[in-house]
Amino acid sequence: MRELYRSELQEIVNDLVVMSDSVQIAVRDATTALLDVNLSVAERVISSDVRIDQVHDHVEYQAFSLMATQGPVAGELRTLVASIQMVAELGRMGDLAAHVAKIARLRYPNRAVPDGLVENFRNMSSIAQDMVGIAGRVLAERDADEAEKLVTEDDQMDKLRSDQFRMMVGNDWPYSVEEAVDVALLGRYYERIADHAVAIGKRTIYIITGEMPEGEDWPTT
Amino acid sequence: MRELYRSELQEIVNDLVVMSDSVQIAVRDATTALLDVNLSVAERVISSDVRIDQVHDHVEYQAFSLMATQGPVAGELRTLVASIQMVAELGRMGDLAAHVAKIARLRYPNRAVPDGLVENFRNMSSIAQDMVGIAGRVLAERDADEAEKLVTEDDQMDKLRSDQFRMMVGNDWPYSVEEAVDVALLGRYYERIADHAVAIGKRTIYIITGEMPEGEDWPTT
Repeated sequence: MRELYRSELQEIVNDLVVMSDSVQIAVRDATTALLDVNLSVAERVISSDVRIDQVHDHVEYQAFSLMATQGPVAGELRTLVASIQMVAELGRMGDLAAHVAKIARLRYPNRAVPDGLVENFRNMSSIAQDMVGIAGRVLAERDADEAEKLVTEDDQMDKLRSDQFRMMVGNDWPYSVEEAVDVALLGRYYERIADHAVAIGKRTIYIITGEMPEGEDWPTT
Repeated sequence: MRELYRSELQEIVNDLVVMSDSVQIAVRDATTALLDVNLSVAERVISSDVRIDQVHDHVEYQAFSLMATQGPVAGELRTLVASIQMVAELGRMGDLAAHVAKIARLRYPNRAVPDGLVENFRNMSSIAQDMVGIAGRVLAERDADEAEKLVTEDDQMDKLRSDQFRMMVGNDWPYSVEEAVDVALLGRYYERIADHAVAIGKRTIYIITGEMPEGEDWPTT
């Protein structure tokens, strides 16, 4: 029985890692839909989010069941509680990728992102995908050092978002109001995906060390 | 010992209710800062968010401690797990109110919201405050019927957000690009506060009945 329990606990962590892979693919594909103006890819991201939500519900249920039946102690309880919190972050990241795909679909056959910001969004997406990948590896390998990389990447994400705002203030925005609104919301979605990746990194450090990383190095999410 | 445990469990729910009161005040004050262009109120909301985050950490810690020491069963475990999830929602709602206050501060002494949208944001804020209040009462009184009201209010919030978008598409937006960007993000923040209130309502129904409310009546959050 004890062995079954251990393998069920590991199964939950594995499911979180698989979920992070799905989120990474969703971010990649949502960006393809957005920047390459691809409607069928947009539809695929939106329908895949239903699957991510199903995994979310499954993991949440499994973690709760183990708590209810196994009387987990210290490190195991910490893992289970953190899993319930991390599965919420991953579910939310999937929703945000779907939001990006929905804007791509809404503007089709036009591209929501104007020419001058395509590069900016490609970079945002690349950093977001990196961060989801790091979060997944941190989880899979219980590697607190790897988690530190999230801090640097998050700084780059913030810089890209600031670049967007700099273009939109003042009077020299060469595109439409509608495009500005899309850029503002899309930028927000990518930034939030990055925030959730940081939160997963922090929670994994908490699982490993029993302490949440604090201080100005670690951004609040 | 058992009696102490029961009172500690009740204390956690009480803290969540107090936190929902703080969030409701933060939303009210952030809107005052935004629409009445009041810098000192904006500063107050931003610094109060630190206090909300402290309550968040305290409740999360207390719920975890009870799980670790008391071996909670069925309904109690459900309450503790849901408390950890709901405290995250409330913490996030406080952050969103602080985001509104930060935009008010950034644009001071100008008003971020242009004349034609002041009424719209007053209505958004009023609905958001109502919804936080309902979520708090649902929690305090374990009243699943009261939670149903959140669905209707959330529909009204969505309608107000659609009204904003209708004004910003096409070519007749009479204000600046910067104002459009502010409206888009501010609208998003109020809408997210409403979403979190709905999530709290759903989780409270789960505590009471053991089932999450599903179906198209209940918006996904």
